[in-house]
Amino acid sequence: MHFKQQAINVNSHILNVLVNKRKILNDPVFGFIGLQSDLIFDLIEHPYFQRLRRIKQLGLSCLVYPGANHTRFEHALGTLHLMRSAIASLQSKGVEITADEAEAVSVAILLHDIGHGPFSHALEKTIVQGVNHEVLSLELMKILNQQFDNKLELAICIFKNQYHKKFLHQLVASQLDMDRMDYLRRDSFFSGVVEGTIGSDRIIKMLNVANDKLVVEKKGIYSIEKFLIARRLMYWQVYLHKTVIVAENLLINVLKRAKELAMQGTELFAPPHLQWFLKQNYNKAQNLNFELYKSELLSNFVLLDDPDILASIKVWSKHSDPILAFLSDAIINRKLFKIELSDKAFDQQKIEKLKTEYSTLLSVNEHEIDYFVFSNTITNNIYELTSDEITILMNNNATVSIDKASEIDLSAISKKVTKHYLCYPKKLALV
Amino acid sequence: MHFKQQAINVNSHILNVLVNKRKILNDPVFGFIGLQSDLIFDLIEHPYFQRLRRIKQLGLSCLVYPGANHTRFEHALGTLHLMRSAIASLQSKGVEITADEAEAVSVAILLHDIGHGPFSHALEKTIVQGVNHEVLSLELMKILNQQFDNKLELAICIFKNQYHKKFLHQLVASQLDMDRMDYLRRDSFFSGVVEGTIGSDRIIKMLNVANDKLVVEKKGIYSIEKFLIARRLMYWQVYLHKTVIVAENLLINVLKRAKELAMQGTELFAPPHLQWFLKQNYNKAQNLNFELYKSELLSNFVLLDDPDILASIKVWSKHSDPILAFLSDAIINRKLFKIELSDKAFDQQKIEKLKTEYSTLLSVNEHEIDYFVFSNTITNNIYELTSDEITILMNNNATVSIDKASEIDLSAISKKVTKHYLCYPKKLALV
Amino acid sequence: MHFKQQAINVNSHILNVLVNKRKILNDPVFGFIGLQSDLIFDLIEHPYFQRLRRIKQLGLSCLVYPGANHTRFEHALGTLHLMRSAIASLQSKGVEITADEAEAVSVAILLHDIGHGPFSHALEKTIVQGVNHEVLSLELMKILNQQFDNKLELAICIFKNQYHKKFLHQLVASQLDMDRMDYLRRDSFFSGVVEGTIGSDRIIKMLNVANDKLVVEKKGIYSIEKFLIARRLMYWQVYLHKTVIVAENLLINVLKRAKELAMQGTELFAPPHLQWFLKQNYNKAQNLNFELYKSELLSNFVLLDDPDILASIKVWSKHSDPILAFLSDAIINRKLFKIELSDKAFDQQKIEKLKTEYSTLLSVNEHEIDYFVFSNTITNNIYELTSDEITILMNNNATVSIDKASEIDLSAISKKVTKHYLCYPKKLALV
Amino acid sequence: MHFKQQAINVNSHILNVLVNKRKILNDPVFGFIGLQSDLIFDLIEHPYFQRLRRIKQLGLSCLVYPGANHTRFEHALGTLHLMRSAIASLQSKGVEITADEAEAVSVAILLHDIGHGPFSHALEKTIVQGVNHEVLSLELMKILNQQFDNKLELAICIFKNQYHKKFLHQLVASQLDMDRMDYLRRDSFFSGVVEGTIGSDRIIKMLNVANDKLVVEKKGIYSIEKFLIARRLMYWQVYLHKTVIVAENLLINVLKRAKELAMQGTELFAPPHLQWFLKQNYNKAQNLNFELYKSELLSNFVLLDDPDILASIKVWSKHSDPILAFLSDAIINRKLFKIELSDKAFDQQKIEKLKTEYSTLLSVNEHEIDYFVFSNTITNNIYELTSDEITILMNNNATVSIDKASEIDLSAISKKVTKHYLCYPKKLALV
Repeated sequence: MHFKQQAINVNSHILNVLVNKRKILNDPVFGFIGLQSDLIFDLIEHPYFQRLRRIKQLGLSCLVYPGANHTRFEHALGTLHLMRSAIASLQSKGVEITADEAEAVSVAILLHDIGHGPFSHALEKTIVQGVNHEVLSLELMKILNQQFDNKLELAICIFKNQYHKKFLHQLVASQLDMDRMDYLRRDSFFSGVVEGTIGSDRIIKMLNVANDKLVVEKKGIYSIEKFLIARRLMYWQVYLHKTVIVAENLLINVLKRAKELAMQGTELFAPPHLQWFLKQNYNKAQNLNFELYKSELLSNFVLLDDPDILASIKVWSKHSDPILAFLSDAIINRKLFKIELSDKAFDQQKIEKLKTEYSTLLSVNEHEIDYFVFSNTITNNIYELTSDEITILMNNNATVSIDKASEIDLSAISKKVTKHYLCYPKKLALV
Repeated sequence: MHFKQQAINVNSHILNVLVNKRKILNDPVFGFIGLQSDLIFDLIEHPYFQRLRRIKQLGLSCLVYPGANHTRFEHALGTLHLMRSAIASLQSKGVEITADEAEAVSVAILLHDIGHGPFSHALEKTIVQGVNHEVLSLELMKILNQQFDNKLELAICIFKNQYHKKFLHQLVASQLDMDRMDYLRRDSFFSGVVEGTIGSDRIIKMLNVANDKLVVEKKGIYSIEKFLIARRLMYWQVYLHKTVIVAENLLINVLKRAKELAMQGTELFAPPHLQWFLKQNYNKAQNLNFELYKSELLSNFVLLDDPDILASIKVWSKHSDPILAFLSDAIINRKLFKIELSDKAFDQQKIEKLKTEYSTLLSVNEHEIDYFVFSNTITNNIYELTSDEITILMNNNATVSIDKASEIDLSAISKKVTKHYLCYPKKLALV
Repeated sequence: MHFKQQAINVNSHILNVLVNKRKILNDPVFGFIGLQSDLIFDLIEHPYFQRLRRIKQLGLSCLVYPGANHTRFEHALGTLHLMRSAIASLQSKGVEITADEAEAVSVAILLHDIGHGPFSHALEKTIVQGVNHEVLSLELMKILNQQFDNKLELAICIFKNQYHKKFLHQLVASQLDMDRMDYLRRDSFFSGVVEGTIGSDRIIKMLNVANDKLVVEKKGIYSIEKFLIARRLMYWQVYLHKTVIVAENLLINVLKRAKELAMQGTELFAPPHLQWFLKQNYNKAQNLNFELYKSELLSNFVLLDDPDILASIKVWSKHSDPILAFLSDAIINRKLFKIELSDKAFDQQKIEKLKTEYSTLLSVNEHEIDYFVFSNTITNNIYELTSDEITILMNNNATVSIDKASEIDLSAISKKVTKHYLCYPKKLALV
Repeated sequence: MHFKQQAINVNSHILNVLVNKRKILNDPVFGFIGLQSDLIFDLIEHPYFQRLRRIKQLGLSCLVYPGANHTRFEHALGTLHLMRSAIASLQSKGVEITADEAEAVSVAILLHDIGHGPFSHALEKTIVQGVNHEVLSLELMKILNQQFDNKLELAICIFKNQYHKKFLHQLVASQLDMDRMDYLRRDSFFSGVVEGTIGSDRIIKMLNVANDKLVVEKKGIYSIEKFLIARRLMYWQVYLHKTVIVAENLLINVLKRAKELAMQGTELFAPPHLQWFLKQNYNKAQNLNFELYKSELLSNFVLLDDPDILASIKVWSKHSDPILAFLSDAIINRKLFKIELSDKAFDQQKIEKLKTEYSTLLSVNEHEIDYFVFSNTITNNIYELTSDEITILMNNNATVSIDKASEIDLSAISKKVTKHYLCYPKKLALV
């Protein structure tokens, strides 16, 4: 038996002939999403993209918002849909976007998150080291470009912001990109936090280009203000919800502990590609041969998804290491720790007292107590004034930044806010 | 270190004191869902119920409807919400429902699916043998009843239809139960098949009780007809969508093959509780000690969820057994087989011809070819006329069945429809 | 002072230069509605079309559904929007529709209701005699065609079904026209009868043309069934709601009585153009010079709207004629009569008895009692099997009627249903 | 014939016996709205309340937003619905609200707008002089109180803020009253300006009472910020939309001109009750006998509605006075004037120049030109810091104003903004 290899070889050639690729997909948020080209259809069919079906957009937020089980797959399709609208809207105003550019910018947005792993925040801080998801997205796009006969050149060029029409990159990555337009609306939809919804239709209808820069027409100012406020609300209500923070920190600690044990040679249940990450010594790898490391990393990474992590943690919740077991159980059965939030740093004495208390309670040592009592900060800066400002096109064709065009003091909204948090097990679960 | 056990022991006692249990949950479908009692809060916190977070309501349907990632957890909460409305509606019409009955019927609907495993249809046909999810739900309710000091007695009594007020059972399980009311609306919502939505609000407002039987007031006839049509549409468009059928059959074949290999002693990656199912010989178990078997089964079953299956299948897609690998890859990377539908049975000769052809192509033997070329039937009977009819309360207080009350010939809608299907690999993936 | 006339003369010339006619309108149902051409913009600006702002789509239904205040103006814009989608959908399937045809069919749907007067049903049966709204629509289109330099020729040709591509007419007037697609969805939306909503998006995506006939692709069968059921529900729940029936009959009686009085020379408050209708003797006019009559009728008709009728009836509710006053008060202050519905004709004796009783109560004579006690029938035939059937395009490219393609017996749904009703004042308002 | 009087006399007595008053109404915004008591049912049936069916909530805004035809009737029902939720939410938190108080505060909100006339803004500035709608609401409530055997005493007491539980008044009239909660959401819904929608559900769930004051729990801060931003957006996008401003000013001018002509003895078409207002000399009336004037005013006022104004203006558009005709035509056929907006006052010279130019063009004199060229200001102050601040209940049970609790500088949002506008006919309509 030998059919597997053949299958892969012929795949891309014959598919083109047999399949109707102008498919229409149902989307709860936008209704119907049409695929505009064969290339886009083929990219969606690719295992790299299919993997996004198994990666939740909001990680552990579903522990707070039970409906938030939507995936990066749906999100990517949503951005594709909005990109089509944005292109049509800009073209109707006389902005030149060729058919090739339209496809390329669509491909760029479709693949913008292809490098996301499961629970990205937690994994990038623990077992997926040395690369973040933007870098990985680019690496995977390059591989796809090779597999698709260089048809992704222009998309990659736009993605890297090396194309001469800079506004195309802004549609992919900027304060007003189609990524944000979709995720704010989609996350609001599935979490049920209806107040977070944004008027993406209206904003897209008000986009224009001035001096090769994406701008919003003046009558769209209120929509932009609303967008910024909604985005802020989503940050604090959903993305940085304190229960989500504590869940993510528990996941970080689980993975840290698992890696600690794995590096010590302890046997842990996990799929082989997750085993690879648990046993990898990044610092060492880096010194030897980074290209080789990267290549191995990619081949394991494209297999990694939410079920790997969840299935493993559930098994670990019965592990003989009580720390790993306790932390894993806390996630799987939602026995989350207590979290305190504060505008100021927590008193060091308070933290020490908690550590001492819990060390005794849990019979753990000084090193191990950090898995149970931990403090850190979260930061939210919605709108970075300096780097990438939203620009308004005034009636006299002048452009000004939203900060100047708006009557609201956006420095207040866009202020970098840092909050401190302190987590520890709920007493009741221990005494 | 010894804290785990203690934690479990004290759990139920102290929680009651410290936690505000009148929580409100966000739900994308119904907005806010309030929890009406401490018992309900505690049941939701239980690991048995938390497990439902990791079981998709529609199994593999997300391969066709990318938004359909909602879970049995959300569905159960939705039924709880609708039950509250139904109780309030009936009480406002003078139907007596005591506070105890209200809680019990709420608990019964909350737990009605507690015995569902991952991909129930496929698993019940393969590795979870000897029990179906209704039986398991009841078994798990009994265990919970013990853990919760017999507070679930009345709920179980209603669930088993042994309570003297029969209409309470009908709210849990009948043509018009809160289960259907929620799942049709929720599945329509998340799949994006908006036409499947039903007027659950209106139907619930028109419920009444006559002769201890749940009835619908006459002016609700059109809503009921619409409900039946929408349900039929959901069946063919979502639940029995041909691509979903082929995906489920592939999953069945994967699990069959995996079990076949496991019984032969082949090593397969899987979490321990899934291993247990793969290695179980049900027929043998049955003969020896069914109670013991059941007890072991339950303790493994309550650990089983979607990630277990998905993580394992992904590893199996690289297995050295080419059949297991091919089938697993077909699911994970959505390389689904071709499916033909027909109102009549397929010509046996045609099937044989396909088998011969593919046997050669794939170099598999007579037994193995059944994993690749297979035929079966699906049946849809929306509304079973005989058993459990929907009853209409006429203006003169007489009751008649919907079939008689409606102007539409519902025998046409409710006709048991059987379709035949025939599946085989797409040529392109093989030649 | 003399500026009015000049204004009218130059209007059409200068407007073209100065105004941005690619306007986008907000619509609660569809979001944004864009206007595709200058001609369409200019037609919408015309007083004939602006008049539709003051004519409610559902007449007196707002007495039952308080939200149903939407106008024929909005409906016409909605049909325009759907027509654009339908054209795009058909073109994407290779159906040839030229730019001229696209504009013409859009104009035809935009103006399809231009001949609707206020409370059409009631007025056509009483004071607007000799012409119905279809005839008036055509007459007004012809006038507009003259004013717009014959630019409406093709639109009129399609409207009259004289164009060789017959499917274009079907988009304007058939079982699946954009009129129905909009009004069912819009009336459902504004009445709050959510169950009446139809999947217009999906149906439009499944339209095709076979043998110059509008057809629905096979996978759209369930959507069509759902559409037919929803339509039936809307008929009985909204359009033929018994309280709406009684309100419309009261309006008919008010207008009959007003005309009766006006022909006798009694003074009645009313705007001059409504006075014209009250005082017109159609039969006499017809004998003399129908063209002159029609011309006068049109010039008065284009001024007639809901406020005329409502303002007059309110004044009439204080009129010295007690019959006119009583009936007018019944509408204005929603003191509607009792209505009985029956599948059979009411017993003549029962009617006579009621008449006798109320004659005495109200001190009215034999002729006058018919204003208070009246009986008639309503008929609903959703889907006329014979005339204009919905055609399904099967997978083998054959076409069959929906009745044959569907598993449901649509003869049951489409059966012509006749109901009898009997109305009389509520006792309480009289004794 | 004599039945009218009897009917009125017996009305209130017998209705109670015969009618099911626990009606459920369909509402496009909230789904179903139930009526909680017989008193509320009877108030809704009263002609004063039925009149609200014929008064649009947003006056002439439908000239910009074609869907905005919703009425004050629907709005009042919406506030009733939200009041019920607010009462239940507060009660669930231990705030004592007796059944009598609950009904009274419901009646107060139901009738809070009963004194609104058609196009209130325009009429109060022209023909309805000496009283505004708040005063009229109170006067009409007093009359209703008499008719309903003093059952409205407590409602009136709360409405006038004379009841000792001050938070009840705040539910009726404050920054967070049910009036705003409904109108922002409803106006957003019907105008199609989806971004204006507010999270009324969530805000209501977060209401509480501290020191007899309505407060919002801390976790509701983001919702309140969003509410304030949405409200601001609605102001500028809908309520103070420049095209709405120009339409309202045209209506003011039409009514001024009509009154000017009427006082001169010119004959004008209008229903008698509108005639009364056109011919009234308020200053003179005031000097003589204000109580008599008020009594006459009320009896005419309760007959006045939108159709009166619209039907009259349409007739006036053919009046022999060219000024009245021109202005009336501008409204009826939507030939609106040009409007310029500016942050600063317009240059007096510019205005004079325009006046001179248009005086010649239109052959009107110095006095008359003010009907055609006019300038004024609009002001928006969303959130008045000084008077009636929104109070937040912090976690430590302290209360602080939203300005202090929010991270956003709300002084910016709540700043009183004044804009200047200048209107004049579009050239094209004149040359």
